[in-house]
Amino acid sequence: MFKLYYAPGTCALASHIALQEVGAAYSTERVDFRNNQQNSPDYLAINPKGRVPALVTDRGILTETPAMLAFIAQSFPQAQLAPLDDAFAFAQVQAFNSYLCSTVHVAHAHKLRGARWATEETSFADMKRKVPQTVGACFALIERDMLRGPWVMGEQYTICDPYLYTIAAWLEGDSVDLAALPKVADHRKRMSERPAVQKVLAVEQG
Amino acid sequence: MFKLYYAPGTCALASHIALQEVGAAYSTERVDFRNNQQNSPDYLAINPKGRVPALVTDRGILTETPAMLAFIAQSFPQAQLAPLDDAFAFAQVQAFNSYLCSTVHVAHAHKLRGARWATEETSFADMKRKVPQTVGACFALIERDMLRGPWVMGEQYTICDPYLYTIAAWLEGDSVDLAALPKVADHRKRMSERPAVQKVLAVEQG
Repeated sequence: MFKLYYAPGTCALASHIALQEVGAAYSTERVDFRNNQQNSPDYLAINPKGRVPALVTDRGILTETPAMLAFIAQSFPQAQLAPLDDAFAFAQVQAFNSYLCSTVHVAHAHKLRGARWATEETSFADMKRKVPQTVGACFALIERDMLRGPWVMGEQYTICDPYLYTIAAWLEGDSVDLAALPKVADHRKRMSERPAVQKVLAVEQG
Repeated sequence: MFKLYYAPGTCALASHIALQEVGAAYSTERVDFRNNQQNSPDYLAINPKGRVPALVTDRGILTETPAMLAFIAQSFPQAQLAPLDDAFAFAQVQAFNSYLCSTVHVAHAHKLRGARWATEETSFADMKRKVPQTVGACFALIERDMLRGPWVMGEQYTICDPYLYTIAAWLEGDSVDLAALPKVADHRKRMSERPAVQKVLAVEQG
């Protein structure tokens, strides 16, 4: 039995979808970002980084989306959410997810989280102005070189897919034109049709 | 036979050390950052992201340090650089490396790479001023909660260690006081005594 700490609209959605896809027994607990619950003493005892997601397991607590996604895939091998028996193919999955967490999510975060890296309001405004360009460049690369179609890794649905779907959901808010990203748009549509995704969204948006 | 593209002083050092530790057959090719070789057409054909490291294998090219480190560990299981038979322990390794790539490295990058996320010189200066605080906070967390000692994961040397060593080498340049980080300082010293590390540094600094 797992317990997932999440907040709606965050990257926790990727792990939430993956848990649902594999048929894991799990509960969820919403962290109230509007009241800064992620920085409350109770939550910092769960994740000292003050972020979501966090996954409580019977062995301890895991954080960091790429690590959690690989853990879910490895814990439920019958769901075939990653090429577990092929180190090179597994590395390609991990490289994609690593790019999402270290470059794409970070580019997006400069829209509203500038205070992580700077102090002045003028810097925050400057960062915010650049987000359509930086996130757009990331997704242009994903569209051109990474997303094989129909799923990220080709015919096989993997842990890359809920993660891409999660971050691609931010594109309109980041003022990136989806019309220039037909493969990403098609991927989003395919994802939105999956029962696991619909169920998870109903919970998170409920 | 692998080929590692690297530049001195970058996070490519982590994969370079790991290749040496496992006894892999590999060659290296230095990418000349001073002449912006990472953005040359020839290099962009290897890594369209214009970054190092990149690892050429007989199956294709891998990028992203956490993915490459896990690939090296999985490709040389006898070197025992990761707990490959324990999904939870492997996830802890991956969570640590994911934190380094998506948070710690990113905090550091705001010192010299502000142009990735903003446009104005005043923003770059603002970002740069905050680096001692942001990188310092990351390493305070590593010191307090993550680095078990003597190695990151405890008694077993893993792929977390060359990666931490690589990023901890930037601390003085980021004006973070090592005196407040005795476990990190001890880890750096232990790492610097390893033959694989000394060999790799001789190549990169040669």
